[in-house]
Amino acid sequence: MKKLKGIKVAILATSGFEESELFEPKKALEENGAEVDIVAPEEGKIKAWKHGDWSRDIDVNVVVDNADVNNYDALVIPGGVINPDKLRRNEKAVKFVSSFFDLKKNVASICHGPQMLIEAGVVKDRKLTSFFSIKKDLKNAGANWVDEEVVVDNNLITSRNPDDLDVFNKTLIEKLSDIKK
Amino acid sequence: MKKLKGIKVAILATSGFEESELFEPKKALEENGAEVDIVAPEEGKIKAWKHGDWSRDIDVNVVVDNADVNNYDALVIPGGVINPDKLRRNEKAVKFVSSFFDLKKNVASICHGPQMLIEAGVVKDRKLTSFFSIKKDLKNAGANWVDEEVVVDNNLITSRNPDDLDVFNKTLIEKLSDIKK
Repeated sequence: MKKLKGIKVAILATSGFEESELFEPKKALEENGAEVDIVAPEEGKIKAWKHGDWSRDIDVNVVVDNADVNNYDALVIPGGVINPDKLRRNEKAVKFVSSFFDLKKNVASICHGPQMLIEAGVVKDRKLTSFFSIKKDLKNAGANWVDEEVVVDNNLITSRNPDDLDVFNKTLIEKLSDIKK
Repeated sequence: MKKLKGIKVAILATSGFEESELFEPKKALEENGAEVDIVAPEEGKIKAWKHGDWSRDIDVNVVVDNADVNNYDALVIPGGVINPDKLRRNEKAVKFVSSFFDLKKNVASICHGPQMLIEAGVVKDRKLTSFFSIKKDLKNAGANWVDEEVVVDNNLITSRNPDDLDVFNKTLIEKLSDIKK
């Protein structure tokens, strides 16, 4: 029996997500038996960003307007400079994020993804990390920002950049395995 | 005699600047007789962003490591989602911005440009505007954020997006004309 059989995870993203920060957690979750939905503000496909330019597409499974937090055990928010800046403009996407915190469900975010956590108003007094360019924004929002490859604060898992993906994925999978115990 | 003859302006940017937000202020300033330097972290050329993709290049005149605030009467910081996120990673660029505030020289910034003002620590109790996606970051940094096409607070001029460029440029040029009086 796979570790995460029966676990369902939403990855919230839009065009401009850092390719590895969506595809690698998705692969790691699925290999461990979890079901993953790509949730986005738009129908159809969203486009990855890689090495400073547009890259491959991925199909959107659920439009954020129709996404229901009750269907998911956890949320993953990838980075990319463009992705969370666009996501945070969408009220439904922001509400979707805050609803995971309201229900104390697990949330994992990496790189620029935590901009969405600022917008959702959930970082005050939280220990977390992010890509270093948004460190000041997170500190101004009341977060306890630290420079570590992965930070776990209750239901929140954060990492800094694509180099941290292995430990980010491992930590997320361990955390979700605990739900099942 | 042109209005801004003898006035020298630095435009601080890097690849990913919103094309119109650099080229239009540059043109308006030069048409009024000002001299404009493109100041960037890197030598050579930097690349514009337009309609969601990479666009044309512009030559860098001065590398930020060698840029001296004393050579300039004013600073312009264009937006683009990518541009200020990259600029704020560069300590010399951030110091260059704060030095204009130290000397109470004029600074004009539009769209995502004000992310550099957060990084430079100069927005507390300032009335300003920006692209709406970074409103929360500016408020968390202590700014009095308002939704107006142009906001003037002492030496700081800010606008929201490319649609505001006409009034942004006009306000900047009036402000710089006053220096000469």
